[in-house]
Amino acid sequence: MPFVALNQLKERELVPGFRARFVHGEHITVGQIRIEAGSTLPQHAHPHEQISTLVKGRFEFTLGGETMVLELGSVVMIPPHVPHSARALTDCLVIDTFYPVREDYR
Amino acid sequence: MPFVALNQLKERELVPGFRARFVHGEHITVGQIRIEAGSTLPQHAHPHEQISTLVKGRFEFTLGGETMVLELGSVVMIPPHVPHSARALTDCLVIDTFYPVREDYR
Repeated sequence: MPFVALNQLKERELVPGFRARFVHGEHITVGQIRIEAGSTLPQHAHPHEQISTLVKGRFEFTLGGETMVLELGSVVMIPPHVPHSARALTDCLVIDTFYPVREDYR
Repeated sequence: MPFVALNQLKERELVPGFRARFVHGEHITVGQIRIEAGSTLPQHAHPHEQISTLVKGRFEFTLGGETMVLELGSVVMIPPHVPHSARALTDCLVIDTFYPVREDYR
């Protein structure tokens, strides 16, 4: 199934206010994460490399003890096992990419 | 450099009307591609797995002989070596992810 429409993707709430749709390839997982203003993602870490792109809103992100406010088009690069957390300052849309596949999100 | 602002990213024109900014991790490359209405990406193929997400506009995509019009939130999953081409029906913004890293886009 090479083409996937948004409404074909199951949406799941990762934590309150973070609603995600994922697709999984052979090696990578890509997610669309809709985030409600004021919602927070508690600090966590995972063995996957992650690159996140902010495509809507303002998103406060903390990685390895450094905090930045991401604006439209900003990218954050998260190496494996590095703790990170986030807070949506407005409604946000983030595109997350992971390597390898997030088997826990299948 | 874990945080990258949009204006820190070099923009390059891949083909006329396709302007791209890329970041490269250890295993994956993520790109933001701004596309002018009416621009076309000629058929090509590469050894990388690719997953593309449409975040703005309407984008006609042909993969392995099948053509679809992608709408907001649509995803296309491109296995290695499969020929693909595209045409922007409106101004578009696409987030592309590749595995492994696109060394040719560094």
